[in-house]
Amino acid sequence: MSDYNAPLRDLRFVLHEVFNASEVWAQLPQLQETVDSETADAILEEAAKVTGQLIAPLSRNGDEQGAQWDNGIVTTPDGFKEAYNTYIEGGWVGLSGNPAYGGMGMPKMLSVQFEEMLYAADSSFALYSALTSGACLAIDAHASEALKNTYLPPLYAGRWAGVMCLTEAHAGTDLGLIRTRATENSDGSYKITGSKIFITGGEQDLTENIIHLVLAKLPNAPEGARGISLFLVPKINVNTDGSLGNANAVTCGSIEHKMGIKASATCVMNFDDAKGYLVGEPNKGLAAMFTMMNYERLSIGIQGIGCAETSYQRAADYARERIQSRAATGVQNPEQTADPIIVHADVRRMLLTMKSMTEGSRAFACYVGKQLDIAKFSPDPVLAEQAQDLVALLTPVTKAFFTDTGLESCIHGQQVFGGHGYVREWGQEQLVRDVRIAQIYEGTNGIQALDLVGRKIVANRGEYLTAFTQRIREQASQPETLYSAEVLSAVARLESVSQWLLEKAADDKNEVGAASVEYLHLFGYVAYAWMWSRMATAAQKNHAQEPDFYSAKLATADFYFSRMLPRTLSLETSIKAGSEPLYGLAAEQF
Amino acid sequence: MSDYNAPLRDLRFVLHEVFNASEVWAQLPQLQETVDSETADAILEEAAKVTGQLIAPLSRNGDEQGAQWDNGIVTTPDGFKEAYNTYIEGGWVGLSGNPAYGGMGMPKMLSVQFEEMLYAADSSFALYSALTSGACLAIDAHASEALKNTYLPPLYAGRWAGVMCLTEAHAGTDLGLIRTRATENSDGSYKITGSKIFITGGEQDLTENIIHLVLAKLPNAPEGARGISLFLVPKINVNTDGSLGNANAVTCGSIEHKMGIKASATCVMNFDDAKGYLVGEPNKGLAAMFTMMNYERLSIGIQGIGCAETSYQRAADYARERIQSRAATGVQNPEQTADPIIVHADVRRMLLTMKSMTEGSRAFACYVGKQLDIAKFSPDPVLAEQAQDLVALLTPVTKAFFTDTGLESCIHGQQVFGGHGYVREWGQEQLVRDVRIAQIYEGTNGIQALDLVGRKIVANRGEYLTAFTQRIREQASQPETLYSAEVLSAVARLESVSQWLLEKAADDKNEVGAASVEYLHLFGYVAYAWMWSRMATAAQKNHAQEPDFYSAKLATADFYFSRMLPRTLSLETSIKAGSEPLYGLAAEQF
Repeated sequence: MSDYNAPLRDLRFVLHEVFNASEVWAQLPQLQETVDSETADAILEEAAKVTGQLIAPLSRNGDEQGAQWDNGIVTTPDGFKEAYNTYIEGGWVGLSGNPAYGGMGMPKMLSVQFEEMLYAADSSFALYSALTSGACLAIDAHASEALKNTYLPPLYAGRWAGVMCLTEAHAGTDLGLIRTRATENSDGSYKITGSKIFITGGEQDLTENIIHLVLAKLPNAPEGARGISLFLVPKINVNTDGSLGNANAVTCGSIEHKMGIKASATCVMNFDDAKGYLVGEPNKGLAAMFTMMNYERLSIGIQGIGCAETSYQRAADYARERIQSRAATGVQNPEQTADPIIVHADVRRMLLTMKSMTEGSRAFACYVGKQLDIAKFSPDPVLAEQAQDLVALLTPVTKAFFTDTGLESCIHGQQVFGGHGYVREWGQEQLVRDVRIAQIYEGTNGIQALDLVGRKIVANRGEYLTAFTQRIREQASQPETLYSAEVLSAVARLESVSQWLLEKAADDKNEVGAASVEYLHLFGYVAYAWMWSRMATAAQKNHAQEPDFYSAKLATADFYFSRMLPRTLSLETSIKAGSEPLYGLAAEQF
Repeated sequence: MSDYNAPLRDLRFVLHEVFNASEVWAQLPQLQETVDSETADAILEEAAKVTGQLIAPLSRNGDEQGAQWDNGIVTTPDGFKEAYNTYIEGGWVGLSGNPAYGGMGMPKMLSVQFEEMLYAADSSFALYSALTSGACLAIDAHASEALKNTYLPPLYAGRWAGVMCLTEAHAGTDLGLIRTRATENSDGSYKITGSKIFITGGEQDLTENIIHLVLAKLPNAPEGARGISLFLVPKINVNTDGSLGNANAVTCGSIEHKMGIKASATCVMNFDDAKGYLVGEPNKGLAAMFTMMNYERLSIGIQGIGCAETSYQRAADYARERIQSRAATGVQNPEQTADPIIVHADVRRMLLTMKSMTEGSRAFACYVGKQLDIAKFSPDPVLAEQAQDLVALLTPVTKAFFTDTGLESCIHGQQVFGGHGYVREWGQEQLVRDVRIAQIYEGTNGIQALDLVGRKIVANRGEYLTAFTQRIREQASQPETLYSAEVLSAVARLESVSQWLLEKAADDKNEVGAASVEYLHLFGYVAYAWMWSRMATAAQKNHAQEPDFYSAKLATADFYFSRMLPRTLSLETSIKAGSEPLYGLAAEQF
């Protein structure tokens, strides 16, 4: 198995040359003091070492050994605990955390790149801290000052872990159905009782404490999603001085046996009159949890990028080294009995599909990171709100499109290896298994697509979308922009389909769901056209300085526009076929 | 985990109503005596019992336990041996075998349907006998009368197994590179020495003997693929009276640890001066082996159908039972807290994608089976040759398109289950892992696509293709044909792209490879348009007799034409972008 090497040059290209990060940060007072180009590069280099040398080597054994459950105790695979301790010493868990409570306050534009490396090294390992970072965000946004003071510092430090507890056996997508109950104690704390499933990192042996953010219902709460509250429930109760007290009534009943991410413990968690604390307002828990959910959705999207990048690196290496058959145009490699398979057109098609999608996703993640930074740090409330609206629009796209294309890439990366891709030895099949969950958890990709079309487009009559396409049009109309015509034509297609959809959805309630997944894909390919236009334009500008690097970007853009973007044609036609063909069969006729 | 229930009604619909099997058979003298509708239906019913009740229940444990290797001995999972013994008593291994040596002589139109059931029940179990059937075909076609008399009867009976030994560590796709050697003994037999990898069923505990068909090179053989010969190498030497003698020098060095088909032993086989017998002419071994390979390619294609069918059955059941959220059009199920998820448009889209592709594949398999029957049994040499040409054209499509769409279906079938699809309990993730190999072995799907475009289309200037599209045009032009306009338009697209490709390929040697996989997909979608037109036409004709059944066929056809066939639009545009975008990067720029 090849190691993972963080693509630092590509990451810097996106951060500095495509998105001019230091200019963005210079306009955001808090970031101006925290970070500049040099700091960012130093952080990325250190991150490359941690992920490539410390974490990636654990991935194969982590998959083989898996997390183990024994009578309520969960053990992570060999080496995880030692690596985790070294990892948290670097402060990585609190990279973008609030400095008032011990976070490093770094911009999201930077931390999305760190997250990519972390998932690329090992998805299971990454999840333990990814959830902590998300839990911190929810606590920071919604909890009382007392809770923040007590819980945020050890969470940012990684000494404690944060976990989200939503799903119950009968309630996944439909959280309004949950049965976990909370009743108030005389001291203002709550008793939480219920059982949650699919809890990532619900129990483990890496941290001193585990802080569960639990959705539950108060007595006489309204029915459905409007009657859900959010509670902070520690595995071990915390004394007022912050030291650890006695065990709380929180137990891990079992862990799942899964297709992949086997080193990540997916737990059944039982709360039996466990002591918890209300976070935010009663019955407003779902909105508070969504602070964490939205963070995790982008993060899980990035899992798609990380897995695809690792698969790509190995596939490209293998294609350069494996010799088999001769090139169609004649012998390329006369000293050997065959040519390297990278000469074959179809191998190149697979590699370029991976490369163009992974780099498109990387650029889009950085773009969304930029909007998150502006939304959080801009002193101009109008700019901040515009950025927040864009984040709302684009978050479901990042989660679903990064992971759908991530699976496609990992499947290509396995196919390049032929039979060797199917055996465990090379690690390519593990990436397919690991990345597959990312299309399912944190809201299935179907749910992301419903969120995009239903809430983010139809509900506001396309207002967010128009703001987004205006930005694309403005930039694509600059005289130096490459692929300007292609981008404008792609945007026009997206607008035309959106307009059609807005009209149809007014008459047909099934139309949003009928169009949703294909519409999200159409949106993704159009957004990546914009990304590739920006990357190509930046590469053209700097070409003379490093011709090999930049000409690869230009050639990959050419591939994207000529062989990937045409996927939008079919999507448009299929979407416009409408909902009717989906409702020709009664349930029993399936 | 739900059980597998063979879709007998759907199988009969294709066999009798779409392809009028008994009329086909009535025109083929040998089949006329062997089989009629009633016999066929009785065989299918028996097959449904064997696969559903005997084999399918072993699948989950087979995956968990896997095949085990210990010091050269391979043990199959619990229950496999007992089930195998019962299975072979039914004569299933020789279902389409030559009656002169103990086969049942049944038509391929029927045995493709049996194979679908077998793979649907368990891919690993199916492989042990699928390879035997293929080996028999090669022996029957190319071996001496003496070899046939000795080896075919116990192989057809399933008491012995047949295996194909092609790949070596450095030679997969490029068999010209193999190093296994054969030297002649004084008695006319040969000594075989070499090491083969990825040998499915190379060693196991199910049969009394294992007959290896091994590619090797004779002394002074020409370089490359023209210097390969085929040898029959038994695991245990066979005495002249057919009884078993001493062990041959054939050993299993290890088995692979794989993503899926874990109960199928994938072996490293070592031949150390093992005794073997030449099959066919010296140096003509690759052509002889292709008799088996082409059989296996269709068979492996059918693995894609089988896995997709099982995944579909479970997903449809789950979608009818799992309640979550309310229908977009309002409450459907007031007695419960939510509606079954089959009310949601995107769940229907996933199920209909599976259903329309699986049934399209099933029909196409039967069509190719019909051509195989005509090629083998027709007394008219012109008809036989026409059928053989069609088989040559369509075999790579069956292998690659059935399995590419099979993986897509299994992924949808897993997605319908949400998080429950990712855990082992429901079996949906196993199907994804099991079906994934079918895109890789028996020649990767990229190699199938090269075979289609390079050998079967460009090499004969589209002659086979024209014969195929003429048949489609003729049928689509019949007045009673439904979707006639759509089929004709799809065929016109295929012809236009083919013409473009023939012209481009004359000037650009990379063009065949550059277009190949997307062209094969285009071909597949157009062929399925024809299949759905035929199925819809048959359903319309018989509608009054069984309205629920036939209206489901009509509605699925509507879905296929409106939401699947548009995929051809993108494929056409992407293909026509040509090979240039694939060659913009040097190998080191990837």
